[in-house]
Amino acid sequence: MAALGVEEVDAFYEGCPQLPGDVDAEIAAFFRHHAPDGRSLARPVVCVTSGGTTVPMERNCVRYIDNFSAGTRGAMSTQEFLEAGYAVIFLTRTGSVQPWTLDLPRQETVPLLQEILACSCDEGGGRDGVAVVAEHKGRVAALLRRVAAVQRQRLLLTIPFTTIFEYLQHLRSVARAAAPLGGDCMFYLAAAVSDFYIPWGSLAEHKIQSADGPLALNLSKVPKMLGVLRGVWAPDSFVVSFKLETDERILLAKASGAVERYGVHAVVANLLHTRKDRVLIVHRAGTGAEPQRSGQRQQQRQGAAATGAHGDGAAATNGAAAGLSVEDVRRPPEQQHIEETLVAKVIELHNQFRRRRQQQQQDKAGVAARHAS
Amino acid sequence: MAALGVEEVDAFYEGCPQLPGDVDAEIAAFFRHHAPDGRSLARPVVCVTSGGTTVPMERNCVRYIDNFSAGTRGAMSTQEFLEAGYAVIFLTRTGSVQPWTLDLPRQETVPLLQEILACSCDEGGGRDGVAVVAEHKGRVAALLRRVAAVQRQRLLLTIPFTTIFEYLQHLRSVARAAAPLGGDCMFYLAAAVSDFYIPWGSLAEHKIQSADGPLALNLSKVPKMLGVLRGVWAPDSFVVSFKLETDERILLAKASGAVERYGVHAVVANLLHTRKDRVLIVHRAGTGAEPQRSGQRQQQRQGAAATGAHGDGAAATNGAAAGLSVEDVRRPPEQQHIEETLVAKVIELHNQFRRRRQQQQQDKAGVAARHAS
Repeated sequence: MAALGVEEVDAFYEGCPQLPGDVDAEIAAFFRHHAPDGRSLARPVVCVTSGGTTVPMERNCVRYIDNFSAGTRGAMSTQEFLEAGYAVIFLTRTGSVQPWTLDLPRQETVPLLQEILACSCDEGGGRDGVAVVAEHKGRVAALLRRVAAVQRQRLLLTIPFTTIFEYLQHLRSVARAAAPLGGDCMFYLAAAVSDFYIPWGSLAEHKIQSADGPLALNLSKVPKMLGVLRGVWAPDSFVVSFKLETDERILLAKASGAVERYGVHAVVANLLHTRKDRVLIVHRAGTGAEPQRSGQRQQQRQGAAATGAHGDGAAATNGAAAGLSVEDVRRPPEQQHIEETLVAKVIELHNQFRRRRQQQQQDKAGVAARHAS
Repeated sequence: MAALGVEEVDAFYEGCPQLPGDVDAEIAAFFRHHAPDGRSLARPVVCVTSGGTTVPMERNCVRYIDNFSAGTRGAMSTQEFLEAGYAVIFLTRTGSVQPWTLDLPRQETVPLLQEILACSCDEGGGRDGVAVVAEHKGRVAALLRRVAAVQRQRLLLTIPFTTIFEYLQHLRSVARAAAPLGGDCMFYLAAAVSDFYIPWGSLAEHKIQSADGPLALNLSKVPKMLGVLRGVWAPDSFVVSFKLETDERILLAKASGAVERYGVHAVVANLLHTRKDRVLIVHRAGTGAEPQRSGQRQQQRQGAAATGAHGDGAAATNGAAAGLSVEDVRRPPEQQHIEETLVAKVIELHNQFRRRRQQQQQDKAGVAARHAS
């Protein structure tokens, strides 16, 4: 287990500040609702993580280091997973984009109300003269109906977080609760998790004073949780991680690294400036998906170097490690968000994974039966 | 001018990345609307700054350092200034709290719509069956009516910012545009501005890689703009700055420092954990306000040490420097937000300042007339 960095991970958790509330009980109740027997899910469950994590610079937190992430990917993906019949645990940064809000004509509250509501705004108008504008009635009613249906069926559990300490504690809780439920659970880790942090034990109690001149900050590396999630917390779950870079030349090498080093089933690789129009899904042929048959090999990078760096946008699917497949996912012009296509592809990989596991279990049962007879 | 740090300030601005758009033209148009002759305002104008500024850690910004600030103070104060007849330039952090939203029954979009709208949510319901719930009609209509009136009279100019570079460039633009309009302009600097930053010139182009181990960040001090705002950009404006600390023992000494060192007319001092219920207004008797008459002296800290540190909450108005007055502002239990009382007190100080200036100008004109006769 040393290769997974279990010791570093344990040390991180031991140094975390205690969380208030009882989120673990909410997670347990959600899984119990969808798998009353504690083992088999009535529908697949995905844990979507979304938004950036903060790293406090003081215990009485005034300043923090943050990761850029509006949370659009996670919110839109949550909608798509719900549409596809999944139940979703949405681990979301406070204040980031929430599901369904992007279906509305405006994102800010007051302009939205001004857009969808009409009122008798002259002083002489009746005090209660306010109604939904005809043009928006259909869209707003559809949204409210959809949300009500999701709530009625308890398909969505929203868990907010702000700091890296909160995020990683909630993630571990979900993973441990998902472990007994096997391959029907997916982790779709779209949150932008800090790579560096200041351990709680070495944080200043009060706001750092600026009077003493320039500030030197020493940040520690956040231990990589992916290997432990895959190998220890929920070894039977399907795990999709995300890799965001600004430098195209290192993107695929980094994405391949996550598959090879941590054993995640797929990595969604994206560049900061094109992430809304294009992503690459890197996955190991035969792990995340069915074993590749010869007809499907055209996209597999046979023997391409893991460190293959190049600046050619047209050939961006180059640079993945040997034995890995790369799916080039682009937003169709008629779709407003790439998540519709992205989530469909990920679900395809998850379905292949589930079928494959089912097959393995049947084969094993068959072998056992033959041995027994 | 060396004492104001003009050189450091100039160096900061020279190193700022260029802003897109033409915010300066919007600011000029706003002032022109309220002072068509370019010199006398039809109503006082306040520039309210709100929310925290970010400090990018990379040019292609994925990571940044942020200051905690929801923006509640700035948003609520903007509403109060508008109610009091001011025109407001609202310099606001993207995504922070906006005026009027706190008057709504819920803050998040989907729960808000669920609360204020009723729809025929069963599948058989009419597609367009959605209306404002009777209970909320009055409140929502009042809000829409108020916003419409503010827009019709062009009383609010909203300028969004994210980074420290954007914030400080916009602030300087507003200050320069306000300069010819004299004492009727106020700066109410509630934004949580970073004390430290990484100069644009020394920022990494791409996302910092975590593979190389722990990260050492060297942050430079952001030059203090208060002195330059007071002394150079808009010397005739009324300036209120804010001081947020987590340690009560240093709060008043820090707040006094801003009055003494930068010549701001008043400092609103607040502690992170009690800021919604209590603030202290530190101001120089006879600068921000009328000269103190003997009957008003009870709150003036005659000879209290500027560094007076103590842990006694009940005596928290202690610790201000000699010659400064401290007003202890507490939220009345019947008010939901302290800003109603806070802004009323600040406007009182502004009015005293305006009357005093008017008197000085009349005196000067009188002297000139006597000299001429």
